[in-house]
Amino acid sequence: MTKRVCVVGAGVAGLTSIKNSLEEGFDVVCYEKDTDIGGLWNYHTTVKEGDTSLYNSCSINTSKEISCYSDFPIPKEFPNFMDHKHFKKYLKLYADQFDLMRCIRFETLVEKIEKTDDNRWKVRTTNTKSGKNSTELFDFVMVCNGHLHEPNKPTFPGLNRFKGKVMHTRDYKTFHGYEDKRILVIGIGNSGADVACELSRHAEHVYVSTRRGSYIQQRAGEYGVPFDHIALNRYVQSLPWDIMRPIHYNKINYKYKHSNYGLAPNFRFDGGVVTISDDLPNRILYGAISIKSNVEKFTEHGVIFDDGSMVENIDVVVLATGFTYSFPFLDNSIIEVDNHFSYLYELVFPVDMEPSTLAVVGLVQPFGSLAPILEIQARWASMVFSGKCILPSPTERRRVVEERRQFLKKTYVDSPRYSLQVYFIAYLDTIASKIGCKPNLLKYFFTDPKLWYKLYFGPATPPQWRLDGPGKWDGARKAIENVEENTYYPMKTRKSGAGELEGLYDGWIKWLKRFIMFILVLFLLRFVFSNGYNVHSLKV
Amino acid sequence: MTKRVCVVGAGVAGLTSIKNSLEEGFDVVCYEKDTDIGGLWNYHTTVKEGDTSLYNSCSINTSKEISCYSDFPIPKEFPNFMDHKHFKKYLKLYADQFDLMRCIRFETLVEKIEKTDDNRWKVRTTNTKSGKNSTELFDFVMVCNGHLHEPNKPTFPGLNRFKGKVMHTRDYKTFHGYEDKRILVIGIGNSGADVACELSRHAEHVYVSTRRGSYIQQRAGEYGVPFDHIALNRYVQSLPWDIMRPIHYNKINYKYKHSNYGLAPNFRFDGGVVTISDDLPNRILYGAISIKSNVEKFTEHGVIFDDGSMVENIDVVVLATGFTYSFPFLDNSIIEVDNHFSYLYELVFPVDMEPSTLAVVGLVQPFGSLAPILEIQARWASMVFSGKCILPSPTERRRVVEERRQFLKKTYVDSPRYSLQVYFIAYLDTIASKIGCKPNLLKYFFTDPKLWYKLYFGPATPPQWRLDGPGKWDGARKAIENVEENTYYPMKTRKSGAGELEGLYDGWIKWLKRFIMFILVLFLLRFVFSNGYNVHSLKV
Repeated sequence: MTKRVCVVGAGVAGLTSIKNSLEEGFDVVCYEKDTDIGGLWNYHTTVKEGDTSLYNSCSINTSKEISCYSDFPIPKEFPNFMDHKHFKKYLKLYADQFDLMRCIRFETLVEKIEKTDDNRWKVRTTNTKSGKNSTELFDFVMVCNGHLHEPNKPTFPGLNRFKGKVMHTRDYKTFHGYEDKRILVIGIGNSGADVACELSRHAEHVYVSTRRGSYIQQRAGEYGVPFDHIALNRYVQSLPWDIMRPIHYNKINYKYKHSNYGLAPNFRFDGGVVTISDDLPNRILYGAISIKSNVEKFTEHGVIFDDGSMVENIDVVVLATGFTYSFPFLDNSIIEVDNHFSYLYELVFPVDMEPSTLAVVGLVQPFGSLAPILEIQARWASMVFSGKCILPSPTERRRVVEERRQFLKKTYVDSPRYSLQVYFIAYLDTIASKIGCKPNLLKYFFTDPKLWYKLYFGPATPPQWRLDGPGKWDGARKAIENVEENTYYPMKTRKSGAGELEGLYDGWIKWLKRFIMFILVLFLLRFVFSNGYNVHSLKV
Repeated sequence: MTKRVCVVGAGVAGLTSIKNSLEEGFDVVCYEKDTDIGGLWNYHTTVKEGDTSLYNSCSINTSKEISCYSDFPIPKEFPNFMDHKHFKKYLKLYADQFDLMRCIRFETLVEKIEKTDDNRWKVRTTNTKSGKNSTELFDFVMVCNGHLHEPNKPTFPGLNRFKGKVMHTRDYKTFHGYEDKRILVIGIGNSGADVACELSRHAEHVYVSTRRGSYIQQRAGEYGVPFDHIALNRYVQSLPWDIMRPIHYNKINYKYKHSNYGLAPNFRFDGGVVTISDDLPNRILYGAISIKSNVEKFTEHGVIFDDGSMVENIDVVVLATGFTYSFPFLDNSIIEVDNHFSYLYELVFPVDMEPSTLAVVGLVQPFGSLAPILEIQARWASMVFSGKCILPSPTERRRVVEERRQFLKKTYVDSPRYSLQVYFIAYLDTIASKIGCKPNLLKYFFTDPKLWYKLYFGPATPPQWRLDGPGKWDGARKAIENVEENTYYPMKTRKSGAGELEGLYDGWIKWLKRFIMFILVLFLLRFVFSNGYNVHSLKV
């Protein structure tokens, strides 16, 4: 009899989980509590408690060439940094292409998932419209409910007597209603920066309070190339980090010297996640946003910061303090969580569970884009379910997870935010090795040097993990070749004048840089195609 | 008897004209048709025909340290790039400081200015509230009515049958009413870019049509320093342009490779004015703005461009096509204008008029900020009126003006836009030489090397022209010393963490660059403190 997979949620993780489970020959049912696919990207103008939610101006902060599923590139007409409408449209195209909609039961909330005595899963659901309950049995479960639905709301002294409005970014939709207000945003992550910048165009003034500061990276990197094309690149990542760190540090300060903008963090350049924001430093330079230190306490109408400074007449406090995660439908014993750290092998499989019939897809935060990361988790999980991939023993899994925990502790500032962090290429390569689809650069160096060049010097686009092995996709090579053309396709809408010096300069400067780097690398004998996220040189 | 000066308009030019005329001991009357000072910067939510007008999101595009009157720096609490409210507040402070308000007759429109037989000026005005006319006699006239009140509205084939809304940026106030519309902006100057970027956050899509393309410069230059601190700098401008041009060209493309963004102009890098816009390239990268070529013709609901491409369903056309200028209250014989080029000696005095009793203040467009340029025109004009400065003969004046006309023709693309163009430092130095207030760098090199260092390597802030000579201001040296502190004062609102490498790297890289440049310069024997705007090496 065909084995059955239950997928919880039809967002970015859920869709690819359905697709990969179908490809492994399973019978798939996906429960989605909303009326449409997309999860976070299924934009609503209002928020329901317990739901994930997006602000209207949100756009994806990785480029389309990096943000696609590996066998389904984003149409070249789409912009490089998509707003939520475009990204949802892409998800629709994906669902149609692989005929996923037929597996999804909308308006169905998963209430409880319990193990039966014969190692199967009993899934109890409620229809959100009719209120009708039902229960079904499955052999496998893929948990794809995301980790951005439960706002993390820290408390501050005096916040309870503050008379203004207090809200979380989760509940922020548009700037309407905030015109001419005085606003304090607490937190300087991506949403904090986005919301602060948008409000600063309409509010009277915006203050941003940050404990640690942050490095700010713009979406356009050098020469206007999407920054992730430069950062998520095997060549760049194979360079010795000790040499590259001051160079990257200088580059990020070359755009805006962070200490002059009140932004400079009190941690090492590589000790945390950078914030992606095109606008934040400009808005500071304009005087529309002021950066402040940590909140010490609130008064009735104002706030006192830990440097003793004070701001009065604050109308709105926006908590941009991120999210915590939970699995309300799972018994606590199923996934061991200790101080925000989940004991999941490679962030997917509960360490102790034998046999591994439940996988978490999407409880991960890459330095890079999410879709290909979630997809490879789903590919792997469905292959584990079908028996094509074998997991190591629970003891070995626990050892790997503990090692990861030590690595995080050593590397990052102490914050729950970092417990889900992985390096993009390294993580994809790690999981791909288990599947057997890791691109073999050494082979291509000899058999297909043109492709090798693209793989090594070009951006690490997801089709790299579809060149070979199980799940091989014939279009992968072409997709890799077309990256540059597709990137500029939506932007070259006017035939540019002949920049007199272009080409003449660009070319040799680029090659000179590469040559110097190459020599440095040879000299240091670190010219390796590394894998595993514990390799320090893979940092971006 | 005290001689009388009539000032037409109480904007940025008018205010400093009043101040300088008062300082020369004249009796001053300023006619202002509005109810308050500020001219362009006196923001109204609606536009009256014939008036100058600003959009609400407009902020000044030069930094506060460069944009002040020379003896009245902008308060250090003010942001570096001021919105119109802050700039008007500054103008108020200036008017109060020098007690200018008492000279201004508000709601008084100048109808006609005519020469009397005894070389005086008969000025006929109308009170805009009561409608009452009156006439007064003056010895001198300062024309300060600006050049941004008469929209330049080119016609395009088919525009008359286009069914959508057609408007000029002069009539644009806010984004309200343009939500979810499809918009075509024609022109890629500063206002075109500003309006397009603002609308792109609210409209469905924005197209920007440009004949020539443009180089786009952000307000934040290297290391986040206001770009004009770097560009308007005697050191930078003394470097040989032939060497610097490819460097600057590479720098501006290093941020966004213009040809990939549809922006690259079809003229030489130094053949035109750059557009100041922080957002435009980002909005292209986001896919919210598309750059298009020149309009060939309009259809009822769309537009066809000269590359044959077509866009349908355009709701609004915004003409960002700049302004023409006129002096409706002056007889055409007074100021000779030929094909948008005015025969004004140094852009101030009608070439043939003898004696010179009328001056135009503000008919100028600098690569740099306006206030100090208008101020030095007013200083000079009032000193010419008082007899402290003597003008050359009409023949010599005409020769200088013709020379300038040839220079413009040779240097820039053929556009009326460039007829008012001057180089900031060179123009200030030229007029300052006539007044006797040009900073003597050679002297300071020996007597006050610390000051020399600031004058030469620092931004050319207006107090440089108050160090010596007539109009010397005792606060000038201190103001020059405080530039860096004042710049970052409004931004350093949080004590930054110790960026581990800062200082260590910044310092020696900066010095290494300077050293290399210094050697280059010595080698080329062009280490001169040049003046005159016909010196090609002064380009920015």
